Amino acid sequence: MLAGDVRAIARLMRDIDDGQPGWTEVLKLLHPRAGRARIIGLTGSPGVGKSTLTDDLVGRFRAQGLTVGVVAVDPTSPFSGGAILGDRIRMQRHATDEGVFIRSLATRGHFGGLTSSTRGVVTVMEAMGKDVILVETVGVGQDEVEIVRTADTTVIITVPGLGDDIQAIKAGILEAGDIFVVNKMDREGAGRTVQELKNMLALSGGAKHRSGWEPPVILTCGLDGRGLPELMQALDGHLQVLTADEGRLLAQRRREGARRELMDLIQAGVMERLLGRLGPEQGLEAMVEQVVSGRADPYTLSQQALSKVLGQE
Amino acid sequence: MLAGDVRAIARLMRDIDDGQPGWTEVLKLLHPRAGRARIIGLTGSPGVGKSTLTDDLVGRFRAQGLTVGVVAVDPTSPFSGGAILGDRIRMQRHATDEGVFIRSLATRGHFGGLTSSTRGVVTVMEAMGKDVILVETVGVGQDEVEIVRTADTTVIITVPGLGDDIQAIKAGILEAGDIFVVNKMDREGAGRTVQELKNMLALSGGAKHRSGWEPPVILTCGLDGRGLPELMQALDGHLQVLTADEGRLLAQRRREGARRELMDLIQAGVMERLLGRLGPEQGLEAMVEQVVSGRADPYTLSQQALSKVLGQE
Repeated sequence: MLAGDVRAIARLMRDIDDGQPGWTEVLKLLHPRAGRARIIGLTGSPGVGKSTLTDDLVGRFRAQGLTVGVVAVDPTSPFSGGAILGDRIRMQRHATDEGVFIRSLATRGHFGGLTSSTRGVVTVMEAMGKDVILVETVGVGQDEVEIVRTADTTVIITVPGLGDDIQAIKAGILEAGDIFVVNKMDREGAGRTVQELKNMLALSGGAKHRSGWEPPVILTCGLDGRGLPELMQALDGHLQVLTADEGRLLAQRRREGARRELMDLIQAGVMERLLGRLGPEQGLEAMVEQVVSGRADPYTLSQQALSKVLGQE
Repeated sequence: MLAGDVRAIARLMRDIDDGQPGWTEVLKLLHPRAGRARIIGLTGSPGVGKSTLTDDLVGRFRAQGLTVGVVAVDPTSPFSGGAILGDRIRMQRHATDEGVFIRSLATRGHFGGLTSSTRGVVTVMEAMGKDVILVETVGVGQDEVEIVRTADTTVIITVPGLGDDIQAIKAGILEAGDIFVVNKMDREGAGRTVQELKNMLALSGGAKHRSGWEPPVILTCGLDGRGLPELMQALDGHLQVLTADEGRLLAQRRREGARRELMDLIQAGVMERLLGRLGPEQGLEAMVEQVVSGRADPYTLSQQALSKVLGQE
């Protein structure tokens, strides 16, 4: 894998995505080689044009001579478990460039685990020697924000015409962003969206949390590349702030990322063991039946399950 | 509380939201009184007009003589932990109607727990005797979809101009929906969005999972109420399918909801105990430092933590 065997790398990434046992053993070996890449997270509602922007950024980093990895987090349907077309279609432009490695995570860990599988794939890309890794998440839910917040720089993407609703600022996305992008800048109301974002940022005091970094709001057009040079400039500006003062802010970010990864790994592991130990007659399905039939409440049952496996508190 | 003491109810809901110890003890007592209300989940990207539609539905159910509870799931910023304005502003129309109880969940459980706190508040509203409970989640992430999927009927809301992107179908939202709404129907491209949704539903075979229920796609205008009668009709239609055949499908839905609630409660409880038992020198922060400094990898550390508390596998 370290010799660059793409098939071995692809297999490991698939194992991580599928939650196959054994992948953590390989990652233990790769971990010492990680931690050197620049990690950029991008998130926003469906339809704001994340893939197009990511695609453009890949080209710009390549033009600087940097190698790039892309992790697109894209949990598939909870029912079908099948693959999604989108990933195959996108980014064909870079398909023959060996300096670019694109991988999308389609499945979701059984008990959470999405943060740790994303970071697992990022670790593999770092060990492969990629200079820049773009982590793109679909959706603007809490999970998606958590994932991109494990990046060094978080970019939040929106479009005009969504920002006119008070809800657009919700879900804790505002203070998670280091850079804001208003894509599809030719749409009506782009200027107002920028102004609203700026007002909200000023109100929330988001900048204060970032010690000297005031999150910029940038207008872009993913289709023709307008605004992309400004976005690259903002990314470089944020990197400078992160690495200034002996990298104090970068270390703080990475500490936060490691904390989330550890929590996620522990949580996934503990649920797996717990449900394994309960056995069929006290297992999850038996508890479900008791709740649905009204014979017991979920609070008592979950406490009993915990006491059985972990002992009394 | 059962006598209708609104202050006692509000205090319990706040405790649930804040994850205060003891709330599960009260819910144990209330649980036998739950399970009778009709629970409707609504989700969609920020800015699609969820609150306006919810507000309108409240009025329509009230006109039928039914009492209504609204739970708006709205995780606040991970940084500030502060409250959000939106909830105070919205739904002023029903502020003086005693048949309506609105509560927004602003915080997020420490270790997940958002599904169980939402269901906890739903349980309180059921025990209060509310006939219909609307659960509204902000965002379209995996978490938000998980929450509304614990409802009896799930409504997915979108607007024209988002559906033109292949990403709009992602994140597993398609097969989670029983009813699809294209709000802001006067916007350009509304017809195309409806057609695209219908095509995707046909392709995904989502209807098959619902045994005879074909998810309709409804055009609405939240501002003037167009399409809302059709939405009410679709909600009633779905209820009929759920309760047909001695409520076989409804029971299946509720089993799924109970499963998610149990998993969420167990997960939250186990993390709390685990981190409590590890003690400071092996605690989370010590692990974080080891990972960031490169002295250990997160995979080994999380396995060690699990073994310490749960014993060797």
